[in-house]
Amino acid sequence: MSKNLTKREVDYSKWYNELVVKADLAENSAVRGCMVIKPYGYAIWEKMQAELDRMFKETGHENAYFPLFVPKSLFEAEEKNAEGFAKECAVVTHYRLQNDPDNPGKLRVDPSAKLEEELVVRPTSEAIIWSTFKGWIQSYRDLPLLINQWANVVRWEMRTRLFLRTAEFLWQEGHTAHTTKKEALSEAMLMQKVYAEFAETFMAMPVIKGSKSESERFAGADETYTIEALMQDGKALQAGTSHFLGQNFAKAFDVKYTSKEGKQEYVWATSWGVSTRLIGGLIMTHSDDFGLVLPPRLAPIQVVIVPIYKGDDQLAEISSKVDGFVKEFRQQGVSVKFDDRDTYRPGAKFAEYELKGVPVRIAIGKRDLENNTVEVARRDTLVKQTVSQDDVVDFVANLLVEIQDNMFDKAVSFRKEHTTEVNTFEEFKEVIKTKGGFVSAHWDGTSETEDRIKDLTKATIRCIPINNKIEEGACVFTGKKSIQRVLFAKAY
Amino acid sequence: MSKNLTKREVDYSKWYNELVVKADLAENSAVRGCMVIKPYGYAIWEKMQAELDRMFKETGHENAYFPLFVPKSLFEAEEKNAEGFAKECAVVTHYRLQNDPDNPGKLRVDPSAKLEEELVVRPTSEAIIWSTFKGWIQSYRDLPLLINQWANVVRWEMRTRLFLRTAEFLWQEGHTAHTTKKEALSEAMLMQKVYAEFAETFMAMPVIKGSKSESERFAGADETYTIEALMQDGKALQAGTSHFLGQNFAKAFDVKYTSKEGKQEYVWATSWGVSTRLIGGLIMTHSDDFGLVLPPRLAPIQVVIVPIYKGDDQLAEISSKVDGFVKEFRQQGVSVKFDDRDTYRPGAKFAEYELKGVPVRIAIGKRDLENNTVEVARRDTLVKQTVSQDDVVDFVANLLVEIQDNMFDKAVSFRKEHTTEVNTFEEFKEVIKTKGGFVSAHWDGTSETEDRIKDLTKATIRCIPINNKIEEGACVFTGKKSIQRVLFAKAY
Repeated sequence: MSKNLTKREVDYSKWYNELVVKADLAENSAVRGCMVIKPYGYAIWEKMQAELDRMFKETGHENAYFPLFVPKSLFEAEEKNAEGFAKECAVVTHYRLQNDPDNPGKLRVDPSAKLEEELVVRPTSEAIIWSTFKGWIQSYRDLPLLINQWANVVRWEMRTRLFLRTAEFLWQEGHTAHTTKKEALSEAMLMQKVYAEFAETFMAMPVIKGSKSESERFAGADETYTIEALMQDGKALQAGTSHFLGQNFAKAFDVKYTSKEGKQEYVWATSWGVSTRLIGGLIMTHSDDFGLVLPPRLAPIQVVIVPIYKGDDQLAEISSKVDGFVKEFRQQGVSVKFDDRDTYRPGAKFAEYELKGVPVRIAIGKRDLENNTVEVARRDTLVKQTVSQDDVVDFVANLLVEIQDNMFDKAVSFRKEHTTEVNTFEEFKEVIKTKGGFVSAHWDGTSETEDRIKDLTKATIRCIPINNKIEEGACVFTGKKSIQRVLFAKAY
Repeated sequence: MSKNLTKREVDYSKWYNELVVKADLAENSAVRGCMVIKPYGYAIWEKMQAELDRMFKETGHENAYFPLFVPKSLFEAEEKNAEGFAKECAVVTHYRLQNDPDNPGKLRVDPSAKLEEELVVRPTSEAIIWSTFKGWIQSYRDLPLLINQWANVVRWEMRTRLFLRTAEFLWQEGHTAHTTKKEALSEAMLMQKVYAEFAETFMAMPVIKGSKSESERFAGADETYTIEALMQDGKALQAGTSHFLGQNFAKAFDVKYTSKEGKQEYVWATSWGVSTRLIGGLIMTHSDDFGLVLPPRLAPIQVVIVPIYKGDDQLAEISSKVDGFVKEFRQQGVSVKFDDRDTYRPGAKFAEYELKGVPVRIAIGKRDLENNTVEVARRDTLVKQTVSQDDVVDFVANLLVEIQDNMFDKAVSFRKEHTTEVNTFEEFKEVIKTKGGFVSAHWDGTSETEDRIKDLTKATIRCIPINNKIEEGACVFTGKKSIQRVLFAKAY
């Protein structure tokens, strides 16, 4: 298999698919629309999980685990939520296979083992969790209830793409219950903030925080807060959402609490989630024609050391130097790999780590031994430089911080260049068609206008940014009065 | 709800069920046979996961993720494995629900959305993983392949019990591929050793390492290695298994590699797993009539501090002392909770932490302030003592080690007292009936004898212990020649 990727400007979508497979992140499986996450891809997910999990716990949440299956009668209890997910859910109808009498050696569903009630494989867990919360909440003393779950979910999407849209994906879903509307709103906004902080600090992916228009809201939510990122091809990616669910699920599952004053009240709810889709966002924010570019804070291997040698004596000499560096790196908490495999040449190793996005590569050869130097190459800019062996560990530790910052800054600049204010629908269409990116435009606030614009341009309202400046204007499409600009884009 | 548990000697099974629910570990859900793992129970699982995951990585394994679903045609490829799991598997047949025309507001399966091929919800992942490994293995350079997955699995068991046997459970499953039989056997035995080390060092649960008789083997395995623990009621618990799969899956999925000599060879395989069942084992090894008893190394809270006070001034004085302890404990890596809730009395708090098995409880009141002391109570022995505030942090840190050791020693003694060598079938039946525990007896090596003994006594062969001393004798049932004793017990 050629290691060369299709160039991004030739076919961005093809570049993405090739990169995911060739960098050993994931691949399609024997199950339609479901992916296999390979060890290297999973290691990135583990790093994401560790940071997010820490952030959730620091904000008072606890993990728990709820069933994979949702009985149909619970699934349909919250009508809008059910309607939103019914069209794409996997349904278990039987609990046994038997030998197929017509096909020796084959199995078939045992018709006598039909479930009385079908089970939906969770596309999201509000229904099963709220049917459980009913037993956990009696009094105001039980609130707030702040729960998170790491789990797999299934949505039977027709058009799938590795990480971005798969029939099964991994995610976390937070589910919380509160005494007041105000507290639930604060929680939903707090988790949006946590997601934004994670995206920017760890993924080096700048995001816009905003709220969704009614037609883009989560099914069953009164308000959806989102973080929206901009990919290199000018399309937006919804990277995480946090929902204010009002009392919709509390009413559907009859979850009430006794207040301090002794009154029975419905609780207020939120839910929020991010998924393995983030890995798609990570790729499309930073990577280049040579492969993946990983931000140091999420890279499974931050530094790789490649020896360039002839014969065992040279390798031994290099190794004894490198052992010292490795030890020092580990003391500093830097994850480092010394690749002394003799089955591959240095050039092949360089290409492999470029493809896999390792932030820093150190090469050390005969001349370096003589000169007390090493060659340090950074993945983000592809710049190489010669560094003294005496300083290399500190130099690289600082470089990792610089790379993380540089990647974020570069992405911020890209987004800035690809965010355009427009005031006419001609401009709007032109920008969406040629330049892409976020288009900031006035909108009259109606779903009808939003739908018309989508039909004509494929662009949707990504969000109404928070802290939007109030600016009177005229809707770019209808000319009706508008009080603020919103962000449109084509989206993944 | 009364916090008092049924006494173990009155009804062990009832005691177990009550304990699991009252200690906030898990509860039954709206889905038949599926449990909800509550935050406190899940926190124990997270601690188990962290240690096991570290041990897997230290032995060279990497995590990955494979699909939840197994297409029927892959599921049936390895015949024995398929036969073993077909009778208890959940099957997805449809991918959409629609409004039920006969029942407004209700949903039904959309008959037009029937899958061409049914999908089995994984009861174990050999089939889907080996269909994937085929693409990953070409040459000896790709081997060994050492993969682990943390996942949920579904086995449609008819009689379920929280943690011990549930329709859905959480587990890890290792799947490895090797060039030689010898290497695969070593891997299977290595992982048995890792499991035993985990059980004894972290769970303080002594286990017997052994191999399974043919009829107790994993479906599709040539050899199953097991760790077997003894519960307080004299029944055994299979706590983890590691399978040598021979070339069965390699042949079923046509997974070959090119050897150094350029020949095409089938690879050799292992798989191994432990699950949330371990939490059941943890409970039934150590807990008592007052509730859970947790070994310090797996306790989410190792030390709880309860203030005994009248009025805010006393609480403030106690708090300022406690803040110092808390800081010191955290510096030592001890997880500590200061429970200063004013909504519960000290007595209620004592009972709660006893029920939840917190290893050490520190109480501090007015007289302690005067005397510069605290009261330290250990959960395992229920012994209390007065300790100077100057020494308390070191004292408790040492005590945690002592508790861990004491719990293990106690369990070893119990097992010793409940392991009986018998030489006649009368003795065998008598011991199984009255005393329970492991019965060490000669066996003629046939499945027929094993089955007859099971029918008559409900005892099964738990394992043929490794390092069994070779001792000629006569089968306890048939009198035929036997070369070694094996361990029988009734089992969970």
